[in-house]
Amino acid sequence: MSARTVKLVEIAERVLVDNDQVATGVRSRLEAAGVLAVNIIAGPGAGKTSLISRMLAALGGRARVGVIEGDISGSVDTARVLAAGAADAVQINTGGNCHLEADMIERALADLDLSALDLLFIENVGNLVCPTHWRLGEHVKLCLVGASEGDDKPLKYPEIFAVSDVVVLNKIDLIEFVDFDHARFVESVRALNRNAPIFEVSCRSDAGIDALAGWLQAQRKRLGEDFQCASR
Amino acid sequence: MSARTVKLVEIAERVLVDNDQVATGVRSRLEAAGVLAVNIIAGPGAGKTSLISRMLAALGGRARVGVIEGDISGSVDTARVLAAGAADAVQINTGGNCHLEADMIERALADLDLSALDLLFIENVGNLVCPTHWRLGEHVKLCLVGASEGDDKPLKYPEIFAVSDVVVLNKIDLIEFVDFDHARFVESVRALNRNAPIFEVSCRSDAGIDALAGWLQAQRKRLGEDFQCASR
Repeated sequence: MSARTVKLVEIAERVLVDNDQVATGVRSRLEAAGVLAVNIIAGPGAGKTSLISRMLAALGGRARVGVIEGDISGSVDTARVLAAGAADAVQINTGGNCHLEADMIERALADLDLSALDLLFIENVGNLVCPTHWRLGEHVKLCLVGASEGDDKPLKYPEIFAVSDVVVLNKIDLIEFVDFDHARFVESVRALNRNAPIFEVSCRSDAGIDALAGWLQAQRKRLGEDFQCASR
Repeated sequence: MSARTVKLVEIAERVLVDNDQVATGVRSRLEAAGVLAVNIIAGPGAGKTSLISRMLAALGGRARVGVIEGDISGSVDTARVLAAGAADAVQINTGGNCHLEADMIERALADLDLSALDLLFIENVGNLVCPTHWRLGEHVKLCLVGASEGDDKPLKYPEIFAVSDVVVLNKIDLIEFVDFDHARFVESVRALNRNAPIFEVSCRSDAGIDALAGWLQAQRKRLGEDFQCASR
């Protein structure tokens, strides 16, 4: 049993190294075009597509936003974000794969005009485990959870909270109807990740949406300055 | 790229075959002891542990219930189900693995006295994708989703709905506060799975809990008759 398991891990690690090389190439292409990429990771139904739709409205004319939608099957989310104002969108159907990989993003970029974009949201497959260590070339790894899913998600899925650049708690309009210990949630995120800002939003009421949009704009600005320094 | 991918798939398939052999052994042991096993599969925060706690209360003295808890890390759920009345409980920490496998169950059975149990709940890692095709030796594959996660889960994660023996919609107390099209949910489950009963419950209000507990008792009774036939 153990020999087989080790073999699988070795191959998984080799794939991860290859993935990171592709991810580095993707990131170079994004930076050459001045596009900030945000990898959104969440379990099923936490509100990834709703968050992107709200960000599109909040950013309005301030940023040209593209979206890559990752799903096992279907294209309903791509239709949703285009209707919500995305400048462009590409659907990736993973055909059963539980996470996106960098080569999928590389292929999706062929269908996007990066010179016409400032910001790219990448909606990962709904899964709080498997996408964690697959770099896609993103600048920001955004971990999204819903209050109605409980305050114990950092305890149960610690790795994604530990490696994320920003944590977003969605569905705060439902907190009064569910058992959610706010202090416990914040403390357990902080125990895993001292630096990531925590935003609290409701994609239904719009609460907190502008603050998150402003933070993303600041990341874009900071990255733009980095681009300029690098190209001097 | 393609050669590496094919190699990985081949190994993944071999592991699945080995897994199924172990699962068959697990199932034989459960049946020899007259224990019905239920594999609970859901995304993070859908309410797996809450459902088990409610089933423990609803089944009361009618069944001796054991629980195997699968988590990436931690043991809070095992403490919860023991407090809720489980006759016995074992925690499996997968150490990052995104689903349970049959050999993990085989090892957990060493810590359970099957002769003292009638029913065994196996709480899988919170993930609607990866646990789908890993048989654990269960008799019933139970797919659980929360209404607050949206009505589109069958469209987004079709495979788990297609292979489940029963579908449970939890958090129906939240339907009035979220956008949830009930007819759309039921129709999309039915398009994937003609036979699985659909139970609608609230682990907060207790709505629908007795009906699901009654169905599980009926499965136990049916299986008990099958055991008797097989041993004649």
